[in-house]
Amino acid sequence: MVEVIAPINIALLKYWGKSDIMNIEPVTDSISLTLSSEHLHSRTIISLIDDDRHIFRLNGKSHPLTARMKDVIIVRSKHLCIESSNNFPTAAGLASSASGFASMAFGLSNLYQLDCDVASLARRGSGSACRSIFGGIVYWKAPASESERYSPCVRQLFLHTHWPDLRILICVSSSQKKSVPSSVAMRRTTVTSPLFQEARAKVVKERVPQFIHAFQCRDFELLAELTMRESNELHAVCLDSWPPVIYLDATSFAIMEFVHTLNNNAGRNMLAYTFDAGPNAFILTQANDAAVVLTLLSECFGSPSHGLEDANGLEIKRERIETPENRYFEVRGISCYDSVNLTDNRVRNSPSLLCTL
Amino acid sequence: MVEVIAPINIALLKYWGKSDIMNIEPVTDSISLTLSSEHLHSRTIISLIDDDRHIFRLNGKSHPLTARMKDVIIVRSKHLCIESSNNFPTAAGLASSASGFASMAFGLSNLYQLDCDVASLARRGSGSACRSIFGGIVYWKAPASESERYSPCVRQLFLHTHWPDLRILICVSSSQKKSVPSSVAMRRTTVTSPLFQEARAKVVKERVPQFIHAFQCRDFELLAELTMRESNELHAVCLDSWPPVIYLDATSFAIMEFVHTLNNNAGRNMLAYTFDAGPNAFILTQANDAAVVLTLLSECFGSPSHGLEDANGLEIKRERIETPENRYFEVRGISCYDSVNLTDNRVRNSPSLLCTL
Repeated sequence: MVEVIAPINIALLKYWGKSDIMNIEPVTDSISLTLSSEHLHSRTIISLIDDDRHIFRLNGKSHPLTARMKDVIIVRSKHLCIESSNNFPTAAGLASSASGFASMAFGLSNLYQLDCDVASLARRGSGSACRSIFGGIVYWKAPASESERYSPCVRQLFLHTHWPDLRILICVSSSQKKSVPSSVAMRRTTVTSPLFQEARAKVVKERVPQFIHAFQCRDFELLAELTMRESNELHAVCLDSWPPVIYLDATSFAIMEFVHTLNNNAGRNMLAYTFDAGPNAFILTQANDAAVVLTLLSECFGSPSHGLEDANGLEIKRERIETPENRYFEVRGISCYDSVNLTDNRVRNSPSLLCTL
Repeated sequence: MVEVIAPINIALLKYWGKSDIMNIEPVTDSISLTLSSEHLHSRTIISLIDDDRHIFRLNGKSHPLTARMKDVIIVRSKHLCIESSNNFPTAAGLASSASGFASMAFGLSNLYQLDCDVASLARRGSGSACRSIFGGIVYWKAPASESERYSPCVRQLFLHTHWPDLRILICVSSSQKKSVPSSVAMRRTTVTSPLFQEARAKVVKERVPQFIHAFQCRDFELLAELTMRESNELHAVCLDSWPPVIYLDATSFAIMEFVHTLNNNAGRNMLAYTFDAGPNAFILTQANDAAVVLTLLSECFGSPSHGLEDANGLEIKRERIETPENRYFEVRGISCYDSVNLTDNRVRNSPSLLCTL
């Protein structure tokens, strides 16, 4: 039996679209931050069982194995019991499939003592999961040629200690399951969005060195702008897809406006938003500004009745304001992460093996 | 003195971005419907006055002449008193500048008996105004070469009688002035949006013959899809601009979802949405479906307290529904237009000269 805990990762340079659906090869490169698994994580326990089939339980509920899970379970000597749980909303654009498949792939590789590329194994379940295998700032490179197609393509760009002042706030406004699964939406975008088809690869190619430069120099002004433009471009190509894919909601747009207003008033980029395939905002800021940003966010958004994991000691503040149009925008919980880091203190792997029996 | 009434026009293939700001040359072609000026229109009265300056009143309120207005007033023998009024919200993405400048240019050309290209004169005030000079289905072509740059470039593709079953519904959810003026937003998009810069011109080039074909064959299925994709692409490049330009609001997205749901259930495109630089939806449908669409729209959206020009006999129905998220979406008024037509029964010009003294 193995028990693994794995963190989520937040893409700043977005992964969207596969060039090879079978092998989950991305159309473009992506760059992400792997968060500490202290708070938001997937915990997966895998045991060998004497049964005639695999068993899978997600958040305590039995599910049939998905096709993507079967792609990850490559060794089939014995059947498995896989019990996975997320301590945050599943399939709500909070990267639960990244942490879920990272923990599963890492667990299997340990269970079977596999000498394989764990990131590539995780990727078979969910593309973005391969980035959760590494800590710190992670780069997933799209294959540039046929020969690159089967070689390891994920690497750590910078250690989790590289930028100790970086702070992440996660604003959960909706824990509803996303309307269109990412894999369906990605396929729709690659097949139908002319903007994506004509421009996206070229834009990403130009942005990769800019992102690396921003991290290298710890240039928050630049990182913030790049991050917000990337988020907007992802949702632009989603809107340009047919039929359109719309993940952002009224609260997301209100948070975007809040961020731009605050940055304008400050005369510099105090904070930046990024949204994945869901309405929940990830906010980037720096240590010196984090308290002010958190207080203002909490004063402007929030619901008095719900919270994200109130019990586990996260720093959560909630309130609500009335907007000029007389509408309420609610954020169910705001979690503040002290730093982009690793729980297991190992440089290479970010999932932690809690237990092997 | 001349008194002119001019209609708005609704771009289906969108005009967004100028290649020549001084002469208002568009980056891309556009195709629009000129609505009957019976309901939504600008009314402009121009008189020669013995004063030391021009006088301009918009909706009864005095304003200084804008730079764009001065560009239209090319003959300056005597000073002018220009009184213009819109019978619908101004600068709310309802094309008030199109009807306003069309009426002004048409009025001036009549006042001075100018033998000029009225569309080019109107364009100096507001690009889209040049399309309101013609009735029916109108094509504004971007200059393909330097020699085309100063030649007339707007023409009627089809008479207003070409597709008598076409219906337009205008859903006014907000009469607030737009946050970013179109001209500022266009400039921002052309300068900052990589998706626009890399892809937009090519996409439009491919869509022009598709739109013309859809009109030629009166193929509503095709026209509806093209129209919605165009609207989405416009707002995608706005979102991709920096800082992002966001004209759609929660009601706009709710109307988009309503349209897709209705079309999915019908198994065909019963209706289509298009949004300009504002949150208000223009809905295209056909005579056979108009009553059902209007009833459903009215049942799903609307406010009991406001209406768009209740008094002038428009067919308006209003109600409100509670959405699953417990939010209200309101449409202040829904106006149904019987057909895409002209008021003055002339083929070429759609503004009407009401009076010359």
